[in-house]
Amino acid sequence: MDNMRMTLSECRNLAIEVLTRHGCDARNADAMATTITGAERDRAHSHGLFRIPGYVASLRSGKVNGHAAPRVERLAPSVVRVHGDRGFAPLALEIGRAPLAEAARETGMAALAITRSHHFAALWPETQALAEMGFVAFAFTSSKPYLAASGGKTPFFGTNPMSFAWPRRDKPPMAFDQASAAMARGEVQIHLRDGKKVGDGVGIDADGNPTNDPAEILKGAQLPFGGYKGGSIAMMVDLLAGPLIGEVCSFEAGEQDIEDGGPATGGELVLALDPSRFGGEDAIAHGERLFARMLAQEGVRLPGDRRLIARQETPEAGIEVPRVLHEKIEELRIG
Amino acid sequence: MDNMRMTLSECRNLAIEVLTRHGCDARNADAMATTITGAERDRAHSHGLFRIPGYVASLRSGKVNGHAAPRVERLAPSVVRVHGDRGFAPLALEIGRAPLAEAARETGMAALAITRSHHFAALWPETQALAEMGFVAFAFTSSKPYLAASGGKTPFFGTNPMSFAWPRRDKPPMAFDQASAAMARGEVQIHLRDGKKVGDGVGIDADGNPTNDPAEILKGAQLPFGGYKGGSIAMMVDLLAGPLIGEVCSFEAGEQDIEDGGPATGGELVLALDPSRFGGEDAIAHGERLFARMLAQEGVRLPGDRRLIARQETPEAGIEVPRVLHEKIEELRIG
Repeated sequence: MDNMRMTLSECRNLAIEVLTRHGCDARNADAMATTITGAERDRAHSHGLFRIPGYVASLRSGKVNGHAAPRVERLAPSVVRVHGDRGFAPLALEIGRAPLAEAARETGMAALAITRSHHFAALWPETQALAEMGFVAFAFTSSKPYLAASGGKTPFFGTNPMSFAWPRRDKPPMAFDQASAAMARGEVQIHLRDGKKVGDGVGIDADGNPTNDPAEILKGAQLPFGGYKGGSIAMMVDLLAGPLIGEVCSFEAGEQDIEDGGPATGGELVLALDPSRFGGEDAIAHGERLFARMLAQEGVRLPGDRRLIARQETPEAGIEVPRVLHEKIEELRIG
Repeated sequence: MDNMRMTLSECRNLAIEVLTRHGCDARNADAMATTITGAERDRAHSHGLFRIPGYVASLRSGKVNGHAAPRVERLAPSVVRVHGDRGFAPLALEIGRAPLAEAARETGMAALAITRSHHFAALWPETQALAEMGFVAFAFTSSKPYLAASGGKTPFFGTNPMSFAWPRRDKPPMAFDQASAAMARGEVQIHLRDGKKVGDGVGIDADGNPTNDPAEILKGAQLPFGGYKGGSIAMMVDLLAGPLIGEVCSFEAGEQDIEDGGPATGGELVLALDPSRFGGEDAIAHGERLFARMLAQEGVRLPGDRRLIARQETPEAGIEVPRVLHEKIEELRIG
């Protein structure tokens, strides 16, 4: 694949320029650029610049409000809601973070319900940011139907990721972020783009037959990871990011979406737990003992550690962007 | 297999008699018998009478306190702790339920941290009980090392189940309860007892090689479900049921346990969310629309529905108990 190299600040400026050109105000463009650049910095390419054409499509179609002014409400001592005002999720998440942290410090544990928002990125940025503030954090979001329910043959759930982050001593948090699908949809798309087959169990074709062809899977359905257990988690995520907070399920998001190529309108649930209120003497130090014992085993690594290695390298080394993607974004920048 | 039939009340009385005989006071024996009979009622045999020899072993060894008087503390507006007083978990859970519900009603969401307790049953009884009261509930518990960390070759995590329950309209809650292991340990033991092989991916032998022999796996290590994603969940459960609440990780439980055949001392985390405080108009009715759309698909069923079918049948039909297990329990009843 023919790549070109960019610095992180070039990536950031490009994202801001393109998103502003297509209708984001400064505050929204800045929050988006932080998310996009953070993904590229961590070499999570499927959530970085790769998403820009989709973001632009949803700004152009008018589905997403580039001037969104998310509104915060405290629904209960431990529940904060941010109405996303039909914008992209990063600004709503940024605005909700401090009120969520305040509620969690007051009561020991709190939830942030994001509604009327468009999530099209990874989930670890939100859990990681909370863990950097000392919280144990969860995040859940659904999307449009891509994933068959256990036993089913047609798309029903979104890829429905969940993320979990744990604060570390003098280190970036441990954060995992995993789709309920055997493979994240962005990864299936990247396989298609790169002309690669996917492994067994990733998906089925439009007739419900197993296939390794990413194109057939994108026309058929993805499958949950780990069989029916991953299917249960996909259902849980749909309930938490939808009915619990008054937002849509994946199947409803699919029915309502205008198919402009961008993310569907929907919800997200974030939880923050303050470990200093749960009775442990020093939860973080104890977590370090667990991690140390894991890492003492040959072949064992912590979830997310490839991201953390990338994060140390890319500020100097820059990032690699497929030339064909860069050209597409350039067209959007000027077109 | 040679089975005998019992009624649910015979099961309950037998459990109470045996546990009382070996040192449980009336309150503890009653809570235990409810858990054991509930498992048999739902045909979750691996968590029913099958567990009695282990329970008795830990009463006999003195590790478990049959007269435990669990103590409740409110650590924060949204955090309740029950110190288990070295007893079995069912009484601690029973005592913690009302304070947890009260906290969740007050703040919208609350946690119950159970410490110094011995969990040897399923997790769905606690999440289901909360969902019957109208809460969305999670539970997490760790145990002794049985499960290899992703990439590892030796037991490190417990089978580390998590349970999630959602209230239903005019129906028992939807509740799933799944080990982070590809197969619950009780199921591996039942396969061994019944002379059956297990499927691929369930475990490895003591040298780290894949095997389908339950005896070799019990000497080696179980594997997480769904590869590294199930491994991440196992780690999350260890952190939540251990360091977060000041309790042991699975590896520490293994180091401290006296190997009497019963459950290790450890912790459990239960979360309750009050859907009426999360901003949705009618979360439960909305959940019903999701379930209806799932069930309209051929081949799709809801997690836990086999338990609910059993629950309707066993009050009249009674339960089937392997004669060899019944004889063992009879010996404990009189011995």
